[in-house]
Amino acid sequence: MRAEIITIGDELLIGQVVDTNSAWMAERLNEQGIELYQITSVHDDRTHIVNALNEAFSRADLVLTTGGLGPTKDDITKHVLCDYFDSHLIENACVRAHIKALYHDRPDVLNRLTETQWLVPECADILENRVGSAPIMVFHQDDKLLVSMPGVPYEMKIAMTEQVLPYIELKIQNSKLKIIHKTLQVSGIAESSLAIRLEDFEESMPEGLHLAYLPKDGVIRLRLSSYGELSEAEMNAWFERLKGLVNDVLIADIDEPLEVIVGSILAERGQTIATAESCTGGKLAALLNKHSGSSAFYKGSVIAYSNEVKKQVLKVNRESLDQYGAVSEQVVTQMACGVRKILHTDFALATSGVAGPTGGTPDKPVGTVWIAVATPDKVYAECFHLGKLREQVTDRACQKALIGLLRELKE
Amino acid sequence: MRAEIITIGDELLIGQVVDTNSAWMAERLNEQGIELYQITSVHDDRTHIVNALNEAFSRADLVLTTGGLGPTKDDITKHVLCDYFDSHLIENACVRAHIKALYHDRPDVLNRLTETQWLVPECADILENRVGSAPIMVFHQDDKLLVSMPGVPYEMKIAMTEQVLPYIELKIQNSKLKIIHKTLQVSGIAESSLAIRLEDFEESMPEGLHLAYLPKDGVIRLRLSSYGELSEAEMNAWFERLKGLVNDVLIADIDEPLEVIVGSILAERGQTIATAESCTGGKLAALLNKHSGSSAFYKGSVIAYSNEVKKQVLKVNRESLDQYGAVSEQVVTQMACGVRKILHTDFALATSGVAGPTGGTPDKPVGTVWIAVATPDKVYAECFHLGKLREQVTDRACQKALIGLLRELKE
Repeated sequence: MRAEIITIGDELLIGQVVDTNSAWMAERLNEQGIELYQITSVHDDRTHIVNALNEAFSRADLVLTTGGLGPTKDDITKHVLCDYFDSHLIENACVRAHIKALYHDRPDVLNRLTETQWLVPECADILENRVGSAPIMVFHQDDKLLVSMPGVPYEMKIAMTEQVLPYIELKIQNSKLKIIHKTLQVSGIAESSLAIRLEDFEESMPEGLHLAYLPKDGVIRLRLSSYGELSEAEMNAWFERLKGLVNDVLIADIDEPLEVIVGSILAERGQTIATAESCTGGKLAALLNKHSGSSAFYKGSVIAYSNEVKKQVLKVNRESLDQYGAVSEQVVTQMACGVRKILHTDFALATSGVAGPTGGTPDKPVGTVWIAVATPDKVYAECFHLGKLREQVTDRACQKALIGLLRELKE
Repeated sequence: MRAEIITIGDELLIGQVVDTNSAWMAERLNEQGIELYQITSVHDDRTHIVNALNEAFSRADLVLTTGGLGPTKDDITKHVLCDYFDSHLIENACVRAHIKALYHDRPDVLNRLTETQWLVPECADILENRVGSAPIMVFHQDDKLLVSMPGVPYEMKIAMTEQVLPYIELKIQNSKLKIIHKTLQVSGIAESSLAIRLEDFEESMPEGLHLAYLPKDGVIRLRLSSYGELSEAEMNAWFERLKGLVNDVLIADIDEPLEVIVGSILAERGQTIATAESCTGGKLAALLNKHSGSSAFYKGSVIAYSNEVKKQVLKVNRESLDQYGAVSEQVVTQMACGVRKILHTDFALATSGVAGPTGGTPDKPVGTVWIAVATPDKVYAECFHLGKLREQVTDRACQKALIGLLRELKE
């Protein structure tokens, strides 16, 4: 079974909104053994949508669309699909009851525009949208399926998880591929050097096994993929062989964000962490508690953007700040020790650097970041040069800090 | 002039990577008066890339591709383009010199795979990639252009800004559209109610003027667009009329993130802010200092994820925590006052809520968030119910906090 995604909305094509839906949907489809062939973003325009539908149906068995289902005039997806499948709109009693229940305490929302949301194409199967008013519609064309979902990410995610994937699952029992992706994460080696090291390995790979290199924020993800050609056992054997070849630079052998990996180790051991952040400004904290369950290991942070906060809250020594500057080994280790002591944690991470675009000096150009790791036994700091762009510098600094912590946890 | 983007890479189609490039490029193209018609994501596969190129050229005058330019085997874009334009690879002396300079202090990277990066199609114009080894290639087909750029976001951004846009600019002097987007941000009204209020306005809009509704994180962006049909003055008149109709729910009349708007007001006035965050866990801090220049107004934060930190660092009263719980008006106002006092700022924002998925109670279900705003004169808190999903709850909480601050700043 092959799928395509069509995301509908002018906002995507003028750059007002980043399409985060497609990647999330792609991952879910792959987990279900469905290959995603193409993602296409089109305007809220009848001809454009119809052309994209025709092209997608010519290549794929399953077409998922998101967007264009709001009650306002700019949203036309429902009407276009209704005409495309030669149907007409009828009132759906279930959808009506659901919308009335959804907004029972907000009578202002139950207006005549919202009421149009319970008109749906007669030919469509309707799945429940538990958290919104836009109907989830399934259309059949010969043996092919089209599912139309709202573009609001959390509505789409709940719809996919609770309704669409179980629905598709029933339809494709016999046409599922065994799609396997297995990923290693490595750091401290250039992509090209890694590729040279793995040349023999790549030469020896059988047809149907693919290796991809994905560098990001100083970590390279090495992904082995098979679309139905290899068994789980064969994949495992190849994966272990690959792992043996990169052992010295290996960070992780699962495709989880590093904050999830350190979080689960800490939680399992009953240990805790805090951060003291200057240049990363809360980004590292937000990463550590991004995922559910973080209160088991994450206690808090002091974001010490100004030197005043470094001194007053983290008790960084005034002399160190004057003598070495905020971006220094002396200050960043004091920040780590300070926050570890104040928040009573087992570990602490601290960052201090020049995120840019201004603030660089010949000595400490933009991208210079000191990162400290404090453990129950010791504290140390390392200096990195992480690029020129603010976002890149702070993202990479978070990854470097997590890699430092992970190394300590593995010792 | 009409453009299309083709993003190339298996990682996009298995959901390992979110395509953030396209939105950024779309915005830049629009600023240049170039309409972006479609975005297509395809696999690292020769046939797939060729089909996408054919389709894109059938609709557009300018095709931008990203991705597939690394030195490793999985990256095939350069070879496919070389064949597509019936050319062959030759060594480019400028690219070679540039790569040698780029890696002069990293001899391990100057290996034979990296050396393949200075082989480029003979028929292509080569633009400089200041920060990476992948060449930026421009191909001509009749009157149409194709530009191939690396997929690494910061390399693409520098290439677009410094090389590609100026290059395109020269080519399209006479075919530029006057694309105008103007956006209002409103909050505190349902999308459907807003649309009913604006029905007469929409009815009266001339051909060529478009209105779109973009709800996100509790804020609705109302975008007026014109692709060459209206003059700047006409657009301004319509925009002012629209603004008059939503004055009571208006948050901002520019399409900037709220953190940028509050930041520039604070910086201009020489005032400062700090945050004390529980459920948002650093996300609000990271937003406030995401953009360059934030040290002018942002001093720091205390991320008080655990109650211990709330008590010890923020001096929240133990009795309040015991009696009302952490998610309460009493605690969140003390958090805001505490951080404002400790960090000596003019303003402070505090958040305390149940981000979920666990931790909800009948009294305080998942999504309940108290937000406090402390100013030089007063402190107050408001309770919100912000949904069910962790990410949604914390994102919306940040927006609510910024809206609260913005209201105070405007008073």
